[in-house]
Amino acid sequence: MTVAQLLAALASPDPTPGGGTAAAIAGAMGTSLLVMVTGLAKSRTNTDEEKASLAKARAALEPLTRRLTDLADADTQSFDAVMAAYRLPKATDEEKTARTRSIQAALRGATEIPLQTLRACADALGHGRIVAEHGNQSAASDAGVALGLLTAAAEGAAANVRINLTGLKDESYKSATDAETTRLLSAAASR
Amino acid sequence: MTVAQLLAALASPDPTPGGGTAAAIAGAMGTSLLVMVTGLAKSRTNTDEEKASLAKARAALEPLTRRLTDLADADTQSFDAVMAAYRLPKATDEEKTARTRSIQAALRGATEIPLQTLRACADALGHGRIVAEHGNQSAASDAGVALGLLTAAAEGAAANVRINLTGLKDESYKSATDAETTRLLSAAASR
Repeated sequence: MTVAQLLAALASPDPTPGGGTAAAIAGAMGTSLLVMVTGLAKSRTNTDEEKASLAKARAALEPLTRRLTDLADADTQSFDAVMAAYRLPKATDEEKTARTRSIQAALRGATEIPLQTLRACADALGHGRIVAEHGNQSAASDAGVALGLLTAAAEGAAANVRINLTGLKDESYKSATDAETTRLLSAAASR
Repeated sequence: MTVAQLLAALASPDPTPGGGTAAAIAGAMGTSLLVMVTGLAKSRTNTDEEKASLAKARAALEPLTRRLTDLADADTQSFDAVMAAYRLPKATDEEKTARTRSIQAALRGATEIPLQTLRACADALGHGRIVAEHGNQSAASDAGVALGLLTAAAEGAAANVRINLTGLKDESYKSATDAETTRLLSAAASR
């Protein structure tokens, strides 16, 4: 998909792709920029330990870009599944029961996807702090933009987790997921 | 350019495209999402005045997506021009003078582009607040993601303005641009 097609799809009145997809793509731009910074010739002042921590950050960040673009696609699919479940027939008691079960399963899927996006962004922010601190300072503004995009992506993913949680009935899943979301957001904000 | 190609280009060790381009694309995703929200069937509770303000916001936001993608391309070109100017010969006094003049002109271009990105994002955030308040509440998380991405884009653009300002010698341009950046960032933060 071209960037122009993505933007047109986001702008169209169809509900998908929406904010969850945009957040994941923004996160992927953040991880890509951080990988760029780790690939620049290092300052001569980097210690061996700093060089090793940058190499470790790069190895962790590289697969996260692909992970986040996969999650961008999965977000659209999971929301389409929720809308399909709501459109199921509800004429008989049996149909009503089956529809409720389908909606709950689809909403759980639509909660898990942004939760995974949030986890990936929080993970990237942890590595991103090391890149911003020890990476080539001529790319300081690139690292800064990356951290800003990843934080916005994490907050957007968390908002999507919470909106879908409100429709779920499994109270133990709801409270555990809400607690994890709070914890990950707090870690993301401490950059 | 496909999304995958953009991410690969951001991740490559070439300095461009960098944070300025990523910030502008994130801003364009924000304006696209806001356009989507204004295109959803309105709540029956919207007053005529609210409907008119949403239509006005949509008309203002639609051209900003294209504006921001143009600025994403221009950011790369303006930074390439700075690097080309630094590579000019500096063996003679004449060459040194010409090189200094070229560097100053290129740095000014590389300051103006993120300044325009910052202006576009601040403008979009003003309209975005109206969309978040009066737009269809079923898309509240989409509007929230949009405002978050536009804020991160504005902050990233401002960082790029300021980094390029440090190399400029025209003190009156520097102080006027720094003051405008502070004012736009403050407007962006008040969302």
